[in-house]
Amino acid sequence: MFQRVAVLGIGLIGGSFALALKERRLARWVVGVARRQETLRAALENGLCDQATDDAIEAATGADLVFLASPVGGMPDLCAQIAPVVAEGALITDGGSTKARIVELCEPLFPRAHFIGGHPMAGSADSGPLAARGDLFENATWILTPTAQTNARALEVLRELVQKIGSRTIEISPLLHDELLAVSSHLPHLTASALVHSFLKSKAQALEIEALVAGGWRDGTRVAAGNAEMWRDICLDNAQAIEGSLEGFAREIETLRALVQARDGEGLERWLDEAACERKRF
Amino acid sequence: MFQRVAVLGIGLIGGSFALALKERRLARWVVGVARRQETLRAALENGLCDQATDDAIEAATGADLVFLASPVGGMPDLCAQIAPVVAEGALITDGGSTKARIVELCEPLFPRAHFIGGHPMAGSADSGPLAARGDLFENATWILTPTAQTNARALEVLRELVQKIGSRTIEISPLLHDELLAVSSHLPHLTASALVHSFLKSKAQALEIEALVAGGWRDGTRVAAGNAEMWRDICLDNAQAIEGSLEGFAREIETLRALVQARDGEGLERWLDEAACERKRF
Repeated sequence: MFQRVAVLGIGLIGGSFALALKERRLARWVVGVARRQETLRAALENGLCDQATDDAIEAATGADLVFLASPVGGMPDLCAQIAPVVAEGALITDGGSTKARIVELCEPLFPRAHFIGGHPMAGSADSGPLAARGDLFENATWILTPTAQTNARALEVLRELVQKIGSRTIEISPLLHDELLAVSSHLPHLTASALVHSFLKSKAQALEIEALVAGGWRDGTRVAAGNAEMWRDICLDNAQAIEGSLEGFAREIETLRALVQARDGEGLERWLDEAACERKRF
Repeated sequence: MFQRVAVLGIGLIGGSFALALKERRLARWVVGVARRQETLRAALENGLCDQATDDAIEAATGADLVFLASPVGGMPDLCAQIAPVVAEGALITDGGSTKARIVELCEPLFPRAHFIGGHPMAGSADSGPLAARGDLFENATWILTPTAQTNARALEVLRELVQKIGSRTIEISPLLHDELLAVSSHLPHLTASALVHSFLKSKAQALEIEALVAGGWRDGTRVAAGNAEMWRDICLDNAQAIEGSLEGFAREIETLRALVQARDGEGLERWLDEAACERKRF
């Protein structure tokens, strides 16, 4: 059992992590951190934590477990602030959507403790502390990204903790994580935003014919409504892999455009069918 | 009340149309047509029609209403076959996803009757006659695409029929329909397929790490599982407008790639936020 857990960013992910620990009696005292008083009040009222504060250093002082669930751009600075105050041998992990830069910058900041990057593949259409659920991570995949420097015992503790709250763990390098997620997560978000931009520039927009928006458009653009600041950070943090995924995707669009231009029915059907067969596997 | 209604293609859309007419007593006798015996049997057992046959000419003989709900590629040939046998003054309409080519080719085939193109914006994750529902078109938008040649009285009859089964009607030209749908429906389908192709070529595929597939990918690629033959036809039928929508979309991807390459956080946030604000309106 952890004695003092600091959750930096007590929203949907951080709050669900806090609740999962409390419900399973894996933490004696949980401190939730957020910038906004409204968030802190909601976290306390929703029973996510025992204490709520806007002061990350206060929260992390003496903590033997710290979970960072704030926007990825600010995580290295946050780690630099809390590094001097966490308990000796503490476990510090995060739930960020990008890993290479965070792990590279944060790991060396804790010579007396253990930083291990992580990424729970869980979410919800809602956000904030009121959307937190203790079972959010049940049956989810939780990616851990240890490095050659990672302490084997600390990794084992983190792995067991994540499994106790119901997730399957996968362990891959931070770089491979970013490369894979660039295709499986970041690319679909960005193409959704690009579809909305295409729509904005079309006659449909000018004519205000919203009724013509089909189900495929609604499904394909849903994630584009997400938080722009968070996704800006992801784009900057994982810029290189995202550039690669955009280039690969642009080649697919070019292949398709050539098939349409050539009115190549056979080629089009094959291209569409390959995608349909693969998609049906999920 | 229509005396004899022929529904050519008694699947989800055709079957739901047939059922909607029967439930509202708008048709005395409905004949369903499909190629496969299994589909015909299911249509009869599900009460979609009073008679089922694989012979379109037999079904359309003497019909005063014909609804085409078969793949768009074959519609002009089908119309050529049934044109000599439909009742004088009959109303012929369709539910195809493309309009310009169909209307151009089919309208002149009925000198003694009235062809008016249509496109109900309704669907379901399931397909086939067993998925048909009499209320599928309730609160849906049903696009009608009359031309300068369209008989005003026939258009009025069709408009009232569609409204009686619960849909709102919009009337636009076949060309404008195709241009709008290229962006609002065809493009999201094709980008979903392209996302699956990108995934197929990524390391995620090679490593069989399906667990890394995020919710955004699932949402954004859902429609890619659709029927390849049907979508090949749509691509060929609406090739010119689809080429235009792909070119516009490729420009959006290029704009984005340049922002990522320049690590332009401010520009990225603006681009993402514009899309998020617009998407939230839906």
